[in-house]
Amino acid sequence: MAQTVDLLITHASQLLTMEDDLGLIEDGALAIQNGKVVETGSSADLEKRYTGQETIDATGKTITPGLIDCHTHLLFAGSREDEFLSRLKGADYLSILQQGGGILNTVEQLRQATPDDLIQHGLKWLNEFLAHGVTCVEIKSGYGLDYANEKKMLEAISALSGYTDQHLVSTFLGAHAFPKEMKEQPEKQMDELVNHMLPAFRHLAEHCDLFLEKNAFSLDQAEVILERAQSFGYGLKMHTNQLSQLGGIALAKKYQLLSVDHLDTISEQEIETLAETDVVAVLLPGASFFLKESAWAPARQLIDKQIPVALATDFNPGSSPCPNLHFIMNLAVHQLGMLPHEVWQAVTITAAKALGKEDIAGSLATGKRADFVLWSMPNHLYPFYHFGKNFVEKVWINGRFAHRH
Amino acid sequence: MAQTVDLLITHASQLLTMEDDLGLIEDGALAIQNGKVVETGSSADLEKRYTGQETIDATGKTITPGLIDCHTHLLFAGSREDEFLSRLKGADYLSILQQGGGILNTVEQLRQATPDDLIQHGLKWLNEFLAHGVTCVEIKSGYGLDYANEKKMLEAISALSGYTDQHLVSTFLGAHAFPKEMKEQPEKQMDELVNHMLPAFRHLAEHCDLFLEKNAFSLDQAEVILERAQSFGYGLKMHTNQLSQLGGIALAKKYQLLSVDHLDTISEQEIETLAETDVVAVLLPGASFFLKESAWAPARQLIDKQIPVALATDFNPGSSPCPNLHFIMNLAVHQLGMLPHEVWQAVTITAAKALGKEDIAGSLATGKRADFVLWSMPNHLYPFYHFGKNFVEKVWINGRFAHRH
Repeated sequence: MAQTVDLLITHASQLLTMEDDLGLIEDGALAIQNGKVVETGSSADLEKRYTGQETIDATGKTITPGLIDCHTHLLFAGSREDEFLSRLKGADYLSILQQGGGILNTVEQLRQATPDDLIQHGLKWLNEFLAHGVTCVEIKSGYGLDYANEKKMLEAISALSGYTDQHLVSTFLGAHAFPKEMKEQPEKQMDELVNHMLPAFRHLAEHCDLFLEKNAFSLDQAEVILERAQSFGYGLKMHTNQLSQLGGIALAKKYQLLSVDHLDTISEQEIETLAETDVVAVLLPGASFFLKESAWAPARQLIDKQIPVALATDFNPGSSPCPNLHFIMNLAVHQLGMLPHEVWQAVTITAAKALGKEDIAGSLATGKRADFVLWSMPNHLYPFYHFGKNFVEKVWINGRFAHRH
Repeated sequence: MAQTVDLLITHASQLLTMEDDLGLIEDGALAIQNGKVVETGSSADLEKRYTGQETIDATGKTITPGLIDCHTHLLFAGSREDEFLSRLKGADYLSILQQGGGILNTVEQLRQATPDDLIQHGLKWLNEFLAHGVTCVEIKSGYGLDYANEKKMLEAISALSGYTDQHLVSTFLGAHAFPKEMKEQPEKQMDELVNHMLPAFRHLAEHCDLFLEKNAFSLDQAEVILERAQSFGYGLKMHTNQLSQLGGIALAKKYQLLSVDHLDTISEQEIETLAETDVVAVLLPGASFFLKESAWAPARQLIDKQIPVALATDFNPGSSPCPNLHFIMNLAVHQLGMLPHEVWQAVTITAAKALGKEDIAGSLATGKRADFVLWSMPNHLYPFYHFGKNFVEKVWINGRFAHRH
C-alpha cells in the first residue's frame, strides 16, 4: 500500500542529494511531507511506495538542495559605483578613503536609512538571490557600528524573515570597522562592543563575526571579542587573511570557530593548522575578482588537506557587489580550480556547516528541510559549462513553492 | 506645433546614444517613428517638440542601443560538457580529440541534425541572448564542413530570421577545420571551399570567415580563401592569433578585413601593423576564461593604439559555451582592464562596425534602426558594479517591443 505524501517528484535526470559527495541519483525521485524530506531514491522505487497529492515529472531536469549563501553583507544603504570607477581608473584605496569612499561611506548612509528603507532594500536583493536558487542567506550587520544602528540592522534582518520564505541567518558584525567618531578611542569602541552590544544583541543574532585586518581589528582585540561572544553563546566566525597574515588561523583553532572567511593570503603553515580543526574555510572569490589586487584563495591546497570549503557571494557594496552565487561558483571552477562536485558541496552542505545548520539543511537527507531547486538542465555540469546562464526553473522552501523563473 | 511620433521615451536617468563616445544624455529622451530613431536629446527639449502615440517614463532607468554580438557559433548540435570535465581534471587537448571530443564531435552531431533541430536550438539560444538585450547576432556556419551541411546551416540561419525579431548576420565559416574525411586531402577540401561552396553560398552568407591556426588553416590557404571570397563580394573576417602567431595581422591589412578575432597572442609589432588599418579587433575573453591555458588579449595596448575594439561571446559548445554577453562585458572590465565606456562601445557601435553595419545600427543616431534596451538601473556602471545581475527590463527592435523581463 503506497504512502501518500504532499509532493512526489520523479524522473529527475540527475538528483543531487549531497549526502556522501554529490549523492547523485539518475532518474531520481524525491518525496516531501510537512515541509520535510521523506525520502530520495530511484523513481522506480519511490513510485512503488509513494503517492503524491501533487506530482511533478522532472524528466530532463536536475534537482539539488536549495543553495546556501553563508557570507553576505546584503543589508547596506547607498551605492558605491563611483568609487569603483575611480579604482578602475587607477585610484588607490587611500585616495578613495580621502574622497569619503570606502566602508565609512556606507556607514554614513546606513545610519540615515530608516528601518523600512532597509527592509525594502533587503527584499529586492533577497528576491534576486531566490531567482538563483538561494534558499538560505546569512546576513551580517556591520554598517551601523554604534549601538542604535547595529540594533537597527539586526532588527531589520529579523523583520525581513517575515517577508520572505528564505531562511535568514543573522550575524552580528559590530567589529567590522571603527566608526569615524571612535577612531581615536578604540578602547571605548571595544567597551561598547563587548560590554553593551554583544550582551544586548544575543536574541537578535545567531553568530558573531569580526574583521581581523590592518586598519580594522587586531589579533588582541579579536581575541577579546571572540572570548566574550563565546561566553554569550554566539556561533563564532571571522574575516581573516584577506590582505594580511595576522595570526587569525591559530585563533580560529583556539576558539573552534564555525568558519574563517576570505583566506586569500593564508600560508602553507596556516593551512596545516586549519587542517587540524573542524573550521570551515569560506572562500569569497567575488572580492578577488572585483578588487583585482587581491590574491585568489588557494582552494586546491585547502581541499587537498581535507579542509571543508564553502563558497559565498560576500555580497556588499564595496568589495563584492555581486548578488549572483552562480557567478561565484563559476569563478571557483574557472579561476580557483575547484571541480564542479566540490563547488556543489561548497554552496550546499558545507555552507550549511559554516552556519551550524548541517543537521537541518544543506542536503536532501530524510528529515531535513525540503528546500530544493528544479533546474532546467540535464546534469549538474551545466552551470559551469554554459556559464552565465541561470538554469533555475523553480524553487521550493520548506516544501512550499517559492519561485518560478 | 508638436510632431507626433510612434513612441516617445522620456526622463531616462542616463541615455547612451553611443554617438561620440557614450553620447551620454542625463534626463534623456528618445523619439521613434516607423522603426527608426527620429531624435535623441534632453527630455525638456523633446517633450516640447514631440507627442508620442505611446509614451514611456524612464525615470531612474538607463537606455542604450541594443547590444550586438558580432561573433558567435550559435548554431551547433549536441553538448560537450563531458569533454569540459575531462579538461578540468587535467586531460589535454590531444587526449580529448582521441576520445572523439573537440570540434569534430560537434561536426558529427551537426551533420545528423535536421534543419528543424537547428532552428529549435537556435531559437532557444537567441531568446536567451534577447533576454540580455542583444538585438543583433552574427552567426557562423562551420560545423558542417561539407557542401550539404554548410548549406544546411546557412539555410537554418536564414530561416531563423523569420522566427525572431533579432537581426541576424550570417557568416560562412567553411574554413573552420578540415573534416575527418578530408584530413588526408587538404587540396580537395580547399577546392570544395573556394570553387564550390564560396560561389554557391553568396546569397546565404554576408561575410566569410576562416580559422588561421596550427591544425586548422595555414597562412597560404587563408590567402587563397580571402582572395576568392573578396572576389565574390563577401565581407571578410578571420579568427587569428588565438594560440599562435602565423602572420594573420599582415594578411588582414592586405585584404582590409572587417575584423580580426581572438588576438590573445598578438605581438607588439602586429599591434603596430593593425593600428595602420581600419580593421576591428574582436576580443573573445569567454574563451580565455573557459580554456584557462589561453592568454588574455592585450585590450589596453590595442585601445591605447586607437584600434577599434569589439567584444563578443564567441558562443560555441567547445571553447566558450557562454550565452551571456554581460558576463563577457564583465570579463573585459575585471580581467582585460577595459573601462566601462570602452566596453559599451565594444558591444554597440564597434561591434556594428565589425559587421559592416555601423551605418544602420550600433548607436541611436537619427535614421538608424530603433533597436534599444531599457535597463532597470540608474547609470551605465551598474552591470560592471553589480556584476552577475541582468538589469535588462525591456527590449525594442525596429521600434517594436520585443522582450520584457
